[in-house]
Amino acid sequence: MSNKTEIKIRGYHLDMYRHVNNARYLEFLEEGRWAFFEDNPNFDGWPKGIAFFVVNININYRMGATLGDTLEIGTVISHLGDKSGIMHQEAILKGTESVVADADVTFVIVDSRTQKALTLEGELLALLERLADPKGLNAR
Amino acid sequence: MSNKTEIKIRGYHLDMYRHVNNARYLEFLEEGRWAFFEDNPNFDGWPKGIAFFVVNININYRMGATLGDTLEIGTVISHLGDKSGIMHQEAILKGTESVVADADVTFVIVDSRTQKALTLEGELLALLERLADPKGLNAR
Amino acid sequence: MSNKTEIKIRGYHLDMYRHVNNARYLEFLEEGRWAFFEDNPNFDGWPKGIAFFVVNININYRMGATLGDTLEIGTVISHLGDKSGIMHQEAILKGTESVVADADVTFVIVDSRTQKALTLEGELLALLERLADPKGLNAR
Amino acid sequence: MSNKTEIKIRGYHLDMYRHVNNARYLEFLEEGRWAFFEDNPNFDGWPKGIAFFVVNININYRMGATLGDTLEIGTVISHLGDKSGIMHQEAILKGTESVVADADVTFVIVDSRTQKALTLEGELLALLERLADPKGLNAR
Repeated sequence: MSNKTEIKIRGYHLDMYRHVNNARYLEFLEEGRWAFFEDNPNFDGWPKGIAFFVVNININYRMGATLGDTLEIGTVISHLGDKSGIMHQEAILKGTESVVADADVTFVIVDSRTQKALTLEGELLALLERLADPKGLNAR
Repeated sequence: MSNKTEIKIRGYHLDMYRHVNNARYLEFLEEGRWAFFEDNPNFDGWPKGIAFFVVNININYRMGATLGDTLEIGTVISHLGDKSGIMHQEAILKGTESVVADADVTFVIVDSRTQKALTLEGELLALLERLADPKGLNAR
Repeated sequence: MSNKTEIKIRGYHLDMYRHVNNARYLEFLEEGRWAFFEDNPNFDGWPKGIAFFVVNININYRMGATLGDTLEIGTVISHLGDKSGIMHQEAILKGTESVVADADVTFVIVDSRTQKALTLEGELLALLERLADPKGLNAR
Repeated sequence: MSNKTEIKIRGYHLDMYRHVNNARYLEFLEEGRWAFFEDNPNFDGWPKGIAFFVVNININYRMGATLGDTLEIGTVISHLGDKSGIMHQEAILKGTESVVADADVTFVIVDSRTQKALTLEGELLALLERLADPKGLNAR
């Protein structure tokens, strides 16, 4: 994946099953998205007056992760539609190809004043396309 | 909905947008599921040797909830399939019909020893059907 | 104690020891403080331009609390000094006199603009004294 | 400090004041303690049958930390007494000498079976002294 963030599993991440609690994964995914934007050479903050909102998260819990595991959170923009986009995120057990959890995170870009979702077109779409393909190598 | 849990939104639930953070909703949903089982007259704990595991959560964030709001978390078992079931959960702004968030939570019942999902049949299916319809009024 | 909030311990509150994690208690204490103010007949919000800030928490963890326990969070204002006050909070195992955790929470009232702590005097002190003794029965 | 862990402040760490919430700091401190043990050349896990329990945290909140700040969590063992020890921890704003929060964390070592605190003597004390001074350079 284009961006990777490492998280070591600690005691406070676990719940009564001694596995990472399902709510905690959403913090790991949010951490991954912050890193995705921060590390993206084509990102310099959102233009004034707009904001990024998550409207749906569809997450599969495939395996338990436990104390001492390290997860790699991978994040890509996988789809850009008319009014919303999707970031695909995976938590992989480091050193393996085992997917612990994966999620599609649907987002909209809202006008901060009206709180309405903007159509993804023009300069806004161009920015999202550069974020989706930071090196500009691939045709979309 | 058949079971309702109230949660008052406090300062520590909010994030930088002064809305409830998206990870926190998964704790609210888990709270709702614990209350669903606890309050269900047909539930007296899982039979020995089996456990309830969440394998997917598909959650829509429809509105922001903020300080001073009270959410009602409603929980029902909405589907029982061959190997998995679905709990439908909604967070409603108290005193309104506004859905702040809603989710389908897919679960499996695993054999605690093998960690494999059990087929929902026989006594296990009968238990889940009684949980789904605690008053036994409705044909399924 | 003058104000009591009940919290049922759920799976997501626990950590690898199957006890409530030490960070989670600080959320329980914050929940108790919100309830303290909300339920206090002498509280109608802070006057404009001032804010309540926590500057120290000194918490004793006396026993583990686990799944199915119910904690009662009791909260009082126990001290008002020149520049700061203290709220004493206890988490009691419901139905017993067992103190699971207790804390002194030191707060200041800041001028929202300058972010400096205000001297507790005049009307501000009178308000805090009414909060400390909501029924006005006791001499301080 | 002898061990340092970096934490970047993200949106999900903040609360309604857009500062890191006071409960979250206890997770940062726990993260720092895990790293302290993990990185300590003299630590190879606790001997069988004993466990590390936190019995008191006394934390000062000195400044707000906000989005984009990086905190360095420093951790040392600062005191070893008869029945308990103290870890001193500081959260410093990276690149400055500003202390955002600092804490004394009092711990005991318990017999896992009896859950009673052990006297810090003999081999157990020697281990803790090596952890306190990993390079063995300083007289205590």
